[in-house]
Amino acid sequence: MKNKLVYADNAATTKLSKAALDTMMPYLTDRFGNPSSLYSIGRDAKNAVENARNKLASAIGALPNEIYFTSGGTESNNWALKSAVESSKTKGKHIISSKIEHPSVLNILKDLEKSGYEITFLGVDERGQISLDELNGAIRSETILISLMTANNEIGTVLPVNEIGKIAKENNVLFHTDAVQAVGKIPVNVKEMNADLLSFSAHKLGGAKGAGGLFIKKGLRLFPLLHGGKQERGGRSGTENVAGIVSLAAALEEALSHLPLIKVSKMRDRLIEGLLKIPRSHLTGDPINRLPGLASFVFDGIEGEALLLSLDQYGICASSGSACSSGSLDPSHVLLSIGLPYELAHGSLRLSLNSDNTDEEMDYILEKIPEIVAKLREGENP
Amino acid sequence: MKNKLVYADNAATTKLSKAALDTMMPYLTDRFGNPSSLYSIGRDAKNAVENARNKLASAIGALPNEIYFTSGGTESNNWALKSAVESSKTKGKHIISSKIEHPSVLNILKDLEKSGYEITFLGVDERGQISLDELNGAIRSETILISLMTANNEIGTVLPVNEIGKIAKENNVLFHTDAVQAVGKIPVNVKEMNADLLSFSAHKLGGAKGAGGLFIKKGLRLFPLLHGGKQERGGRSGTENVAGIVSLAAALEEALSHLPLIKVSKMRDRLIEGLLKIPRSHLTGDPINRLPGLASFVFDGIEGEALLLSLDQYGICASSGSACSSGSLDPSHVLLSIGLPYELAHGSLRLSLNSDNTDEEMDYILEKIPEIVAKLREGENP
Repeated sequence: MKNKLVYADNAATTKLSKAALDTMMPYLTDRFGNPSSLYSIGRDAKNAVENARNKLASAIGALPNEIYFTSGGTESNNWALKSAVESSKTKGKHIISSKIEHPSVLNILKDLEKSGYEITFLGVDERGQISLDELNGAIRSETILISLMTANNEIGTVLPVNEIGKIAKENNVLFHTDAVQAVGKIPVNVKEMNADLLSFSAHKLGGAKGAGGLFIKKGLRLFPLLHGGKQERGGRSGTENVAGIVSLAAALEEALSHLPLIKVSKMRDRLIEGLLKIPRSHLTGDPINRLPGLASFVFDGIEGEALLLSLDQYGICASSGSACSSGSLDPSHVLLSIGLPYELAHGSLRLSLNSDNTDEEMDYILEKIPEIVAKLREGENP
Repeated sequence: MKNKLVYADNAATTKLSKAALDTMMPYLTDRFGNPSSLYSIGRDAKNAVENARNKLASAIGALPNEIYFTSGGTESNNWALKSAVESSKTKGKHIISSKIEHPSVLNILKDLEKSGYEITFLGVDERGQISLDELNGAIRSETILISLMTANNEIGTVLPVNEIGKIAKENNVLFHTDAVQAVGKIPVNVKEMNADLLSFSAHKLGGAKGAGGLFIKKGLRLFPLLHGGKQERGGRSGTENVAGIVSLAAALEEALSHLPLIKVSKMRDRLIEGLLKIPRSHLTGDPINRLPGLASFVFDGIEGEALLLSLDQYGICASSGSACSSGSLDPSHVLLSIGLPYELAHGSLRLSLNSDNTDEEMDYILEKIPEIVAKLREGENP
């Protein structure tokens, strides 16, 4: 098994699923038309995009014209927040979010702060859960938006989005949820959530990098993020990434066929049970309400980068903190938010699985990680 | 030859070049890592992106850290203009552009107009050329930016960008050029142009849809278009579209190996010569300074959509007005700007070639189009 790749970083990016690759290949070869063109290969591309839109819509309980394709989750989150703000200009300038959001939400909120918006960043408990009471209490008459993620990318905590959406609706406040880590892994339905805006990404669920989407509820004012040829009903100009878009729909269709991810959850639970046997190891995130494929830990006295590099030598791909943060090794804002001290937040490990992973791979991980941790601790002060 | 596809709409989008497809395939299959990850397949993806960046830089005379990858030309143009504005906030609020820019420039400028910027849209002559004297005269102390395209997408006119850049530099004004139609087709060098910002797109030159880039001259303040994980040195957050990016570099390398496009220019000239034999036909754009692959016409008494649909029946893919404009059939702003009356601007045809086109295809086009035009004119009032 050595020299073999055990990919356990599916929350960072996934291998293209076979269905996604097969579906996109024609659009990378003969069916290369521009969807805006009038001739047959253009119309063919247009139909492919609309077919993908229908699939996406039906997968998350939306209408086709509520689905907008983007270049990925980051763009979707940026667009969602700008749209919400633009739609609510006259109402107020207060937004509620949390301390554990993805940087693509946090950083746009910090940008909005500079331009006069007031943001309440809700704290979380040791499981990474917000308090619904606190959320309720934070709402004011000038609150325009609640932006809370469906599931956290670092610790896998699944938030009570249906309850959050209910609170938002009762208070006539828009609700955006970053569902990048959730779509294709747990049931996601915009109606049950009462979501007004919901972000998703292709490459987190078996689709291609460079494609994603945003659900924008009908009736919301469309704030154009990119100006130009008025593609995506004027909301997102630019020639459509046809291959990426069809890969997203195909990958999602395949991912949903695997739900509920019982096999994946079992592998995750094996990892949790096995790795918690390591002395001074701790599970991070919610032990119950967590993503089926996400096992996350901290190990006392271990430095995350050293751990990852050792794992890499054994062909195990994993991450520490957020793998989305450009290789940043700063202690994760999520781990600090759940109350971990700075030193411990540095020694984190995230293993994220999907249906491609196998029990043999889990055996291998469960064999290697305890050895590596023990070895890395050898130099510790007694 | 009937039922065969003659693709003559390479200004709308191109088929992926073989080199581009071959280069991107590994990144759609086994080399799927996230460039931000620390393990080997992540580093491999990172190296691929940086290798592409180096190639792009050397192709246009830039430094690698002056190249930023985006989701395409529209995003690049949007980002360029926002960056220029952000970099020059204290200097003034006047921008000079032209009436024939791509919608992704025009529409962001119109948006800036709403927020207090004053835009001078230079007119053009019948060839689609601006007047350098007029440009010089339009510059004021509060002018911050000149944004003029390298080559027009509808009529193929190549603007005197080196002279424009010189004027910009002499007057201490930033110069952005939308080079989406030019890169890979004519020599483009940011130093010779004195360009501060230059936009390009992959799918116009044999790369994949969903990837493009922006040259931002060192020293310019980077305005982040998308906030998040701080990829692209903080300028453009979001997981990199690795496959798209490597396809861009590979396609450009191949395109440049074909320069100067003598064979393509000859095919273009055959089309121009042959189709101007059609009664009441007119070439649009500059007869001399034009893109090597672009032949554009108007035909009296012909409706563009009908012409395109007839061409499609013969397997000839072409466009009318701008194919980027979501299938819009409004008379083109470019054709109106060069002085064509509304009716004539409706009957336009753009044939855009690249190195994949053949002389046999030109024979076929030259056989079919006169027949189609004659047939469409049959119902005309005498």
